[in-house]
Order: sequence, then structure tokens, then C-alpha cells
Amino acid sequence: MQAAILRLLLAAATPVTRSELGLRLGVGRNTVGLEVRRLLDAGILEAAGFTESHGGRRSLLVRVSPAAGYVGAVDLGATSIDVAITTLASEVVAQAAEDVDVAIGPRAILDKATTMLCELLAGRGADLADLRAVGIGVPGPVAQADGRVVAPPLMPGWNDFPVRDALAELVACPVFVDNDVNLMAIGEHARGVARDVADFVFVKVGTGIGTGLFVNSALVRGADGCAGDLGHVCVEPAGPTCSCGNVGCLEAVAAGPAIARAGEEAARAGRARLLAATLERKGALDARDVGDAAGHGDLGALTVVREAAGRIGAALATMVSLLNPSVIVIGGGVSRIGHVFLAEIRTAVYARSLPLATRNLPIVPSALAADAGVVGASVLATGLLIDVADVREERWVPIGR
Amino acid sequence: MQAAILRLLLAAATPVTRSELGLRLGVGRNTVGLEVRRLLDAGILEAAGFTESHGGRRSLLVRVSPAAGYVGAVDLGATSIDVAITTLASEVVAQAAEDVDVAIGPRAILDKATTMLCELLAGRGADLADLRAVGIGVPGPVAQADGRVVAPPLMPGWNDFPVRDALAELVACPVFVDNDVNLMAIGEHARGVARDVADFVFVKVGTGIGTGLFVNSALVRGADGCAGDLGHVCVEPAGPTCSCGNVGCLEAVAAGPAIARAGEEAARAGRARLLAATLERKGALDARDVGDAAGHGDLGALTVVREAAGRIGAALATMVSLLNPSVIVIGGGVSRIGHVFLAEIRTAVYARSLPLATRNLPIVPSALAADAGVVGASVLATGLLIDVADVREERWVPIGR
Repeated sequence: MQAAILRLLLAAATPVTRSELGLRLGVGRNTVGLEVRRLLDAGILEAAGFTESHGGRRSLLVRVSPAAGYVGAVDLGATSIDVAITTLASEVVAQAAEDVDVAIGPRAILDKATTMLCELLAGRGADLADLRAVGIGVPGPVAQADGRVVAPPLMPGWNDFPVRDALAELVACPVFVDNDVNLMAIGEHARGVARDVADFVFVKVGTGIGTGLFVNSALVRGADGCAGDLGHVCVEPAGPTCSCGNVGCLEAVAAGPAIARAGEEAARAGRARLLAATLERKGALDARDVGDAAGHGDLGALTVVREAAGRIGAALATMVSLLNPSVIVIGGGVSRIGHVFLAEIRTAVYARSLPLATRNLPIVPSALAADAGVVGASVLATGLLIDVADVREERWVPIGR
Repeated sequence: MQAAILRLLLAAATPVTRSELGLRLGVGRNTVGLEVRRLLDAGILEAAGFTESHGGRRSLLVRVSPAAGYVGAVDLGATSIDVAITTLASEVVAQAAEDVDVAIGPRAILDKATTMLCELLAGRGADLADLRAVGIGVPGPVAQADGRVVAPPLMPGWNDFPVRDALAELVACPVFVDNDVNLMAIGEHARGVARDVADFVFVKVGTGIGTGLFVNSALVRGADGCAGDLGHVCVEPAGPTCSCGNVGCLEAVAAGPAIARAGEEAARAGRARLLAATLERKGALDARDVGDAAGHGDLGALTVVREAAGRIGAALATMVSLLNPSVIVIGGGVSRIGHVFLAEIRTAVYARSLPLATRNLPIVPSALAADAGVVGASVLATGLLIDVADVREERWVPIGR
């Protein structure tokens, strides 16, 4: 019952009265009142004022207390760590990011993440004892049963590493692991542009390309935890070799590194004047440079961005035919390199899908943008913590008590 | 409670005791006993002997009575009608099939189906009044809200036709409509090779190509009811025009008509000796002719079958990357044209998918074969009937009372 109350309050955008809770849980006012009282006494809930009076008694509004503890959120990319401290309601209260190559290995990366979490906590006068749980996203497939990474193409040295248990030892609280893109989808479903949407696709375009899928209001993990792997769909049988070992994967021809490479080629071949100047200045290009040049009208750069986006859009059209989602959300660093990118994805999806599946299909940028991963990590961790933990146990003692 | 009891009994392979029912429903023995008694009195359940004695009292086993009424099942193909009468437990007790072109129009087809149902009922000494519900599958997208067909490429003249309401008027009982491939997937999940499998893909290869998807143990219909549309995924941007109006759809290059066409070409070009003889004899070829010739070692026919199966396998590899199913089930008439077809699909899927997603992925023929559609139609109809109908109402009066 306490778990159900917490779940409802965390999902609600605003504070809720006890009678509303009772109605939505289908239990009597007294039962709810008793449990809410216990959660208030424990400092896990807090009073949040009263409803406006309509002649009768004004009702107490309650919400999850910001002092009930923090949740740590870690979003691991191929070349970056994003870390945040959130409330149990997944509101980010502090965050930090660093550029780190995931290939330095799991121990070094998890130490780094723990240090970053401790620094953020210290900045709020708190420490690891105030963390109720940590959620972490990694750029590869995760076995849900034991929180291990399984054969991740973008994470050399991580195969079969027990992320969940190793990090739990460092932070001394429950840890929940999932694929980074799954967490972004969870974030958008709980707090972003896909809030409460039953069927949608979240696409991340960055160093890799992946998707998080919601079907019938639930995340699709698949039999082995590797559903949504759009990046390794073959789109060019005679194309370049991919990091996964196969040939012609979408990721190999349309993700950030492929855009950067095509941009450099265009610059060197004299097809992209602005890009050539940037290359001259920086010595190398990334996807953002190509997007910037495209935004300033460099035709060679525009062609590169359009081709990559067109490839992604064509692959998404297949996804639309298979899953018939009601929204497609595009996120990840490369998705923010300029409006041409999104426009071209839209064109390709609409051109290639059946009219019935696209007549009401918005294709929109992520609302949470760079925060989608950490918000999703927090939502996952809080949700699963409520499932497994008795909220009356010691770990739930509020901050400062 | 009665609905929950019926659902459990219909899902169980064997008769069940009242105490088992109570345990699995989480309610007391007396409550279950009372409701079971009512269902027995109404003739909807029947006694099915006793458990073996282990010293104590022997327990009564109950099951849904075969006399509780029939369910009609209709599986409409582009060129065929399959009709069956089943028990509420979806056991087929009588069936019939006819070749009819769906393009003769909805009224004529539904009249035909109703006549076939009546004949089957008459053969059992029953009539329409003994039908509790009818399930019907159609080869196109269905709007679940109102049971209409929506923009079906293979069903000229059916766009927006209210199949559910029109057929309900003819058979005078509740009618439930879905896409034919969805019903085959439901059939395999309830009674076939994918029994109780949470994540699987059912692929039908016939005049068209479609898939029925189960994710997290539920059928995926998508936002507009057109999920699973593998047939209209673009696999050859410069390929032939498809019945849907787009270019290079999988269906246009690998379904039955495409196989027949490629077989005729091979025969005329002198690349397929056996096929040429068949063509000479029959004047035209169908996919089965090509499969037969391939089975007898005709190299030209083998090439045609292999190319079509390879195309389907490549498209399925994409599906495997996206959904990570634990089983792929292949059905539909063309899937039965010879073992080379299935073998080549397997080869293509395994060659193109990530190892993690295919290390435990069986690709198997449909267990229900030609019956998958009618079994699925019956399972759908019974399941939904239990959801909507009060089993004590008049329509549930058992046969012959």
C-alpha cells in the first residue's frame, strides 16, 4: 500500500489529497489516511498546503518530500559521463558532466562516476548515506537479471562486467542498470514529451544510434535485453564495416563519427568551403562542426547532414511499419546539430511509410534533451526501489535525521 | 469472478479443481465454490472426474463444457475463406474452406461466410442461436474501436467497411474483428508453438506478407492498429511497384505472386526445366508450383525460392534487431512450399543479426499451420466475449436447453 501511494505521488505532477489517493487506489479513506500518516511521520511525504475551500473542510495535500533522500543518476556515453543528483520525484537538483572515454575500463569509469556523485552530494551538504538508489545507463545491451553488460560494441573491455554489483559496492545502496537509450525513453515517458504515451519510439543519435521502444505503455526490452537496436540494422549491404563487425549498419553510415568522416571528405574534396575552413583551423571535425556549417549554408555540409538524416529516416520508416507508434522522439547529441537534420528525418519517414501509420505521427525533438538519460536513470531507480524496498526500513531515514 | 474463472479454465490445458482455481485467483474456497456451482448449474462448466486420492477426499475437476455453446471463426484471405466452428475452449469441431476472391466485396463475402457457418452448425444439429460469438480475421488493418477495415491494399472495395457490425447483424451475436496475421499470432500463443512465449514474431507469407507481434505477453497493435506491417517495408528502392502504391516493398518482391512471377520468368527464359514443363501443362504458375520444382531439384526454381526467402530473412533480421524476440514462427500458405524456403530464411536471419539476439532464437514453422487463423479468431472472440458479456445472460443458455 505504501508502495502504491508512493508510485501515484511520484507519477502525479502536483500534490494530491488523501481522498484522491483513496479513490485512485480503490481503498477506503481510513486505510489511506493511516499509511499517509506513517509516511509523513517517517519524513518520506510532506504536507504541501490545502485545497481551496468550496464550503466544506479544506483537504491536506501531500507529496513526496524533497528531504526523503536523493537518487543518483549516471548516464554513461561512449565518450562522456553525465551525473546527477535528483529527488525521489526525479527532479534534478545538481548535475555534472565530463568527457571520458568509456574504453578506460569499467573500474576506472565507475570510480569516476562515484567521485562525481560524492562531489554533487557534498555540494548539498549530503553524502552517500543520503542516496536511496542509483540508476545508471550504459551504451550497450544489459542483461536485466544480473545487471551485466553483454557484448557491447561501443564499450571495449566491458563484456560481461557486473555493472550493477560493482557500482552498488561503491555507493552502498541499490543500483539499477539499463541501456542508455532505454533510460532516455523512460525519461521522456515519465517527464518529457512522451508523457503517458502508450506507443512511441525514442531514437538517440550520437556516437551510436539506438532506440528505446514503448509498446502498450511498457518498455520493450526483448528476450535478451537488446531490443531497439536500430543502429545495427543493415542499410547498405556493400557499405563500410561497423564497430559490431557486420557490414553496412545504419550506425556505420549515419551516426556522429560517420557524419564527421563524410564532412572531412567533403572538405578535403573541395565540396564544402566553410567546413574546409573549420578543418584547417581545428585539424579534425565532429558532427557538430558539420551541422554548424550546414546551418550557415555550406552546401557540401548540407548534403552530408541530409544523407545521414535520410538514412535514419528510411530506417525509422521500417520501424513505423512494424510498430505503428503514435510519436517518434529524436534525442542524443547529434540530433541537436541543426534543424535540417530533423527536417530531413521527417521527410524520409513520411515519404516511405504507409499513410495510415503516419497520418497522425509527430516526429519531435526530445523535451529533456541532454537530461533525458539522467532523468530516466532516476525514474528507473525510484520505480524499482519502490518495488523492492520496504519504505519503513532504515535506508529510508530522511536526510539529516 | 465468473469471467476470471472462465479465463483460467480456457487457458488451462486440462481440467482444474476448485481449490486450484481459488489459489490462482487469490480468493477463498467458498467464493470460488459458489461461482463454480452457478456455472455448473448454468451448463457452462461441466464436471470432468475427480483427482486421484492421496488419502484425503478426492477433489472435483471442472472444465468449460463443450455444450456451453459454439464460437464461429472466420479467416478471410485475399483469395480464400476458411471457416470453423469451435468450442469455447477453441477446439475446432468442424471446418470448411472455399476459394473466393475477397474483391467480390464485403456484403457478398460476409453472406458467404455466414452461409458456411450455418452449414457447419447444421451438420452438428445446431444453428446460429448456438453461437456465443464470432471472431473474424481480415487481410488488412483493422480499427479496433469500431471493427472497420482501414485502407487495406489487398481488399479492394472494403475501405472503411464496418465488418464487425455488418457481420454481427447476419449472425446475431457479438463479433470481434482483427487483422488475419494478428489472429494467427494469437492462435500460436494460445494453442500453438509459441504457447505462453512472451516475445515472439509470427510471420505469414501468402498473397501478402505480414507479421503478428507479441511483446511482454501482449499483442502489439500499434497506435492505428497497423503494427507488424513487414510486407510494406521498402527493401529495394528501385524495385517494382507494390499493391500499396509504394515502390520496392518486401511483399512486391517476395510474397506468393512475386515467386510465381519470377518462376514464370525463369521457365520462359529456359533457366528452369521442370517449371517450364509445369507452365506448359497448366498455362500459369503459382508459388507452390515453384516450390515443388525446387523440391525436385530444378535449379531455376531453387534460385527463385532462395531469393524470395533471403529477402524475407533479411527483413526479419531487422525485426530481430528491433524487437529481440525469443521465437520466430513462420506460417501462411507460401511457407509450406518446401523446406528450402524455411532453411533460407533461417540462414539470412542468422547471417545478418547481432549474435546476442540470435544465440537462442529458434525459427520454426507454425504448429497450427492452416488452422492458425481460425484458432486465433476463436481465442480472440472467446477472450473478448468473457470481457464484455455477463455469462448469466440469455445468450449463454447451453446448446439444446
